[in-house]
Amino acid sequence: MIKVGLLGAGRIAGVHATAITSNPASCLAAVSDFIPEQAAKLAEQYGSVVRTTEDIIADDSIDAVLIATSTDTHSDLIEAATAAGKAVLCEKPVDLSLERARACQANAAISGKPVMIGFNRRFDPNFAALKRALDAGEVGKAEMLAITSYDPAPPPIAYIKVSGGIFRDMMIHDFDMANFIMGDAPVHVSAVGSCLVNPAIGDAGDYDTAAVTLTYADGRIATIRNTRRAGYGDQRVELQGSEGMLQVGNLTENLLVKSTTQGVSSAKPVLFFLERYMPAYAAEWNAFVSAIQAGGEMPVTLADGVAALAMAEAATRSAKLGLPVSLADV
Amino acid sequence: MIKVGLLGAGRIAGVHATAITSNPASCLAAVSDFIPEQAAKLAEQYGSVVRTTEDIIADDSIDAVLIATSTDTHSDLIEAATAAGKAVLCEKPVDLSLERARACQANAAISGKPVMIGFNRRFDPNFAALKRALDAGEVGKAEMLAITSYDPAPPPIAYIKVSGGIFRDMMIHDFDMANFIMGDAPVHVSAVGSCLVNPAIGDAGDYDTAAVTLTYADGRIATIRNTRRAGYGDQRVELQGSEGMLQVGNLTENLLVKSTTQGVSSAKPVLFFLERYMPAYAAEWNAFVSAIQAGGEMPVTLADGVAALAMAEAATRSAKLGLPVSLADV
Amino acid sequence: MIKVGLLGAGRIAGVHATAITSNPASCLAAVSDFIPEQAAKLAEQYGSVVRTTEDIIADDSIDAVLIATSTDTHSDLIEAATAAGKAVLCEKPVDLSLERARACQANAAISGKPVMIGFNRRFDPNFAALKRALDAGEVGKAEMLAITSYDPAPPPIAYIKVSGGIFRDMMIHDFDMANFIMGDAPVHVSAVGSCLVNPAIGDAGDYDTAAVTLTYADGRIATIRNTRRAGYGDQRVELQGSEGMLQVGNLTENLLVKSTTQGVSSAKPVLFFLERYMPAYAAEWNAFVSAIQAGGEMPVTLADGVAALAMAEAATRSAKLGLPVSLADV
Amino acid sequence: MIKVGLLGAGRIAGVHATAITSNPASCLAAVSDFIPEQAAKLAEQYGSVVRTTEDIIADDSIDAVLIATSTDTHSDLIEAATAAGKAVLCEKPVDLSLERARACQANAAISGKPVMIGFNRRFDPNFAALKRALDAGEVGKAEMLAITSYDPAPPPIAYIKVSGGIFRDMMIHDFDMANFIMGDAPVHVSAVGSCLVNPAIGDAGDYDTAAVTLTYADGRIATIRNTRRAGYGDQRVELQGSEGMLQVGNLTENLLVKSTTQGVSSAKPVLFFLERYMPAYAAEWNAFVSAIQAGGEMPVTLADGVAALAMAEAATRSAKLGLPVSLADV
Repeated sequence: MIKVGLLGAGRIAGVHATAITSNPASCLAAVSDFIPEQAAKLAEQYGSVVRTTEDIIADDSIDAVLIATSTDTHSDLIEAATAAGKAVLCEKPVDLSLERARACQANAAISGKPVMIGFNRRFDPNFAALKRALDAGEVGKAEMLAITSYDPAPPPIAYIKVSGGIFRDMMIHDFDMANFIMGDAPVHVSAVGSCLVNPAIGDAGDYDTAAVTLTYADGRIATIRNTRRAGYGDQRVELQGSEGMLQVGNLTENLLVKSTTQGVSSAKPVLFFLERYMPAYAAEWNAFVSAIQAGGEMPVTLADGVAALAMAEAATRSAKLGLPVSLADV
Repeated sequence: MIKVGLLGAGRIAGVHATAITSNPASCLAAVSDFIPEQAAKLAEQYGSVVRTTEDIIADDSIDAVLIATSTDTHSDLIEAATAAGKAVLCEKPVDLSLERARACQANAAISGKPVMIGFNRRFDPNFAALKRALDAGEVGKAEMLAITSYDPAPPPIAYIKVSGGIFRDMMIHDFDMANFIMGDAPVHVSAVGSCLVNPAIGDAGDYDTAAVTLTYADGRIATIRNTRRAGYGDQRVELQGSEGMLQVGNLTENLLVKSTTQGVSSAKPVLFFLERYMPAYAAEWNAFVSAIQAGGEMPVTLADGVAALAMAEAATRSAKLGLPVSLADV
Repeated sequence: MIKVGLLGAGRIAGVHATAITSNPASCLAAVSDFIPEQAAKLAEQYGSVVRTTEDIIADDSIDAVLIATSTDTHSDLIEAATAAGKAVLCEKPVDLSLERARACQANAAISGKPVMIGFNRRFDPNFAALKRALDAGEVGKAEMLAITSYDPAPPPIAYIKVSGGIFRDMMIHDFDMANFIMGDAPVHVSAVGSCLVNPAIGDAGDYDTAAVTLTYADGRIATIRNTRRAGYGDQRVELQGSEGMLQVGNLTENLLVKSTTQGVSSAKPVLFFLERYMPAYAAEWNAFVSAIQAGGEMPVTLADGVAALAMAEAATRSAKLGLPVSLADV
Repeated sequence: MIKVGLLGAGRIAGVHATAITSNPASCLAAVSDFIPEQAAKLAEQYGSVVRTTEDIIADDSIDAVLIATSTDTHSDLIEAATAAGKAVLCEKPVDLSLERARACQANAAISGKPVMIGFNRRFDPNFAALKRALDAGEVGKAEMLAITSYDPAPPPIAYIKVSGGIFRDMMIHDFDMANFIMGDAPVHVSAVGSCLVNPAIGDAGDYDTAAVTLTYADGRIATIRNTRRAGYGDQRVELQGSEGMLQVGNLTENLLVKSTTQGVSSAKPVLFFLERYMPAYAAEWNAFVSAIQAGGEMPVTLADGVAALAMAEAATRSAKLGLPVSLADV
């Protein structure tokens, strides 16, 4: 039984607590949060106890920590927990700064302890099935990838201002998805961005609508499209291979279909990411547990977190310049 | 916080334990099972403790019990737990005997404690959405209902022999679904049955393929079709209303679609009922908790369990006679 | 080049004229109609000439006639045209009277000339694909068939009164479809009918909603459901085989899908039968031409027309009696 | 009745002959072809007569000509027919040379006679429905367009060499589709091309896989993707608006769906363009007839043909340069 310390007791921590207790090989040994009542509530509900973050990291009986705290603490906690000999699953991103993320990667490597970054979309059963089918050669060799990823609504302008921009904040998931599926980093990144949703986003120096073309050394091509505002929600991946196509469409709220004289209608896609990716969070945890048990490499590494950040950096520059940017220059 | 005693620690009990701990208003206070190791494993995983069934029922600090034991214990445990003042959620069926089920209904009523029967399909988000849309008048008045419910593969002949037959063992879910959607019991039940899957099922006096037509006092019509062997799995409901149609199709294993020169292919329906109805089990538990909190009637009652059994009885007779049977005669 | 005489120049005749001229092996030699202007219009549009029905039947240079006149003339024209040595494609039904249809079958048989009855749904590319897949063993042996066939709106009461009732007028298409797919006639017909759409239909002694269960000698089961009023239109066939299921859903007006915050919506099914079955009419004609060229049997015969009428007769009796009726008794 | 002269009697001419005779307002007055037997066959089938192209153009009783001859004759025949006072529907493209096409546009304008270019995809009922829904404001203002257009298999290398390249030969349809939907020409064209299907295509100086990003003056973005080899066929359009999304997916060969233990499978998209766009050809002709009757502008003009050619020119340059190209520079 892997004894887990859960750092953070907020909304996403609850999702992780269910994943941890639902896996027969792990249990929730302790919970910490800077709001004690929040930690106490979670501990009672899941049959666990409250401790401080320091206590948890210092406790040798705890095998692994799940970092579900705010982004600015990620790098420090990854370094502390690995140094204390624990396996780590850390919510994305590693850091907002590419430089700090690269430093964290180097520091964590010293401990030799496994660190997994929570790019949970890789564990979505649908995207994972696409990857498996591709790897099994079901559509031959990958040739063109298209990722459509639309948020239901833009975040507040205050958030936009500190977010790092649409490429670092939102498209980073899609950059990781491209890396996951294509199995390689692109050579060139060509981005265009517009402000069609809210002029205030443009005033803040950001885009709300963007399209990126990635080209690979072997001639493969990937396109990614984002908008901050698609009320119906949208998360699709499409891979054109030499012998066919693989597509993952939207997960809808339910399977009900209504037919009337007005036409045929069905439920809209699941909007809220916690609901959309609930099975992905469970599968992510199970993959983490399996990787610990197997003693092998983590399925998503710190290097993966750094790679996606670099692509976001290149896209940001390309959109500003109006020219393709070489990833090697970032 | 509703403190719950979980009676039974088998496969389905694990599903219920996740539902109990995932609901912020309930926690898993104790687990019992006639196999102590099984109970211990579950308790450790979910942060709970092992006790005997008798202890749990006698403990006044426990508010509710979830009965996930074998069918032959259901009636007795419902009667004991309600007598001890607990709210009860009991896995279906109430009993294999219509007479015993009716007696249990009467006995539990004396306590005045709420009993919910786990017809979990009513809580499937898809079927529930159909019911909501119908009740909201989105397709006018219900006129024709069609339920398609196919098991992936027949159970062992040994099970068939003690199952009570296809109508009591398998179509009972569909009878409850018909009652749920139509909001009324039918007047006549007309059943045909065949043995097309395995002659041994026929030798055991049962059918493996069956179609039932239900007619209602107001002229509405429902059809139900079952087969014991549809390898791809199949659970669909279709309601024709005066102003349109509502349909719930199959939930597939994933959303991946593959297009090749051979055509377009996608995943087959989710076969295993625990996986197919996982969200339904969670929603069922949440509905039970909400009903306790609200102090009102349970969303599925002992009377509902008895009603579905009576329809199964009528269908069994109709298929044998080759004539419609009046439900009033059962 | 097969020279064709087209008897009738109404709406459906125009559809046939396009089919005749689009087939490189046939041309439209002459058109007749009891409204001369209608015939003249059609002849000019399709580069043909107007003649009387008698002239066309008497002209030895004309190889085949297509009978698209009113139902009451079908039997007489089939007999006259076959006696004159022509191949005949006649619109359904052969006759409203089962007795007259049987006589026509006998009389036409004397000539030895091929007669095809226009059960055009058999030639719908979708239903035809289902039949081909079944015959190719793609889902094993047929076990359960379900036909859903809903008209968009009921015809006028005046029509209902002379229509012969829902089973003869509407479900006859579905009886033929069942015969086409199952490849055999049923043993028993069990029908229920209700009047849910318009009480005036009930006052006229008819039903507007009906469900029929057909049972076959080898245990197979078929269900057919009709309503006179499903504003969105509905024509589906579903075949459960021993190794899988084949389904044909509705053809929609177009492929446009709209996603908004309200959900996902698409076009309703094609309502108007001429539009829904346009490719079927073309394929039907091509099959007729191919059968003439091959000199073999017609793909749909007079016997098929008579068989469907007999099932309608049995269903009408069953619904009235409230009991299953043996087809052998009709 | 509009009397039509059909210039050319090849494969596509047969499609047009059916469209002409199926429209009650037009008839097929004469057919010409440089292979007399081919013309004679078509004339007999459709009840028409054979004449020379010169005779047809000189005959004042003929109101319109449909040019379905080889591409190199289009410009000359457009000029001759308009000069002779006829309305013209000419198959695309106007010419392979942008310069010659521009000259033809100027010359035809002198006659004042209407010329329609056969960009038939605009009349596909599905794409037309998307355009109507967009114009009706059903998804707000257009923001991002994505066109996926994959041929089933590459043409022979000999054809590739004289085709003008993938952007002029294949993507030109998609450029016209973008113009049709966006209602405006883009400002910049940014293209990438690869050779992933067949190295011989690269040796011939062409690409077989290409992606283009179009940016518009108001910030809108369009992406187009082509491959010469997608065995399953693929023609999709997707428009993201400020209030929702419109999508047109693939038209499949039939509606049959098969469910087995292997999964759910359905027919592949219709591959052959004549079959895929058959209803589009009919609707195109009907639109031409309606425009003549209304006396207004043609729904697709010579200017539209020239505009798409210019975008193909810009894309060809962009892919070679590896930089965006301004459409104003072409």
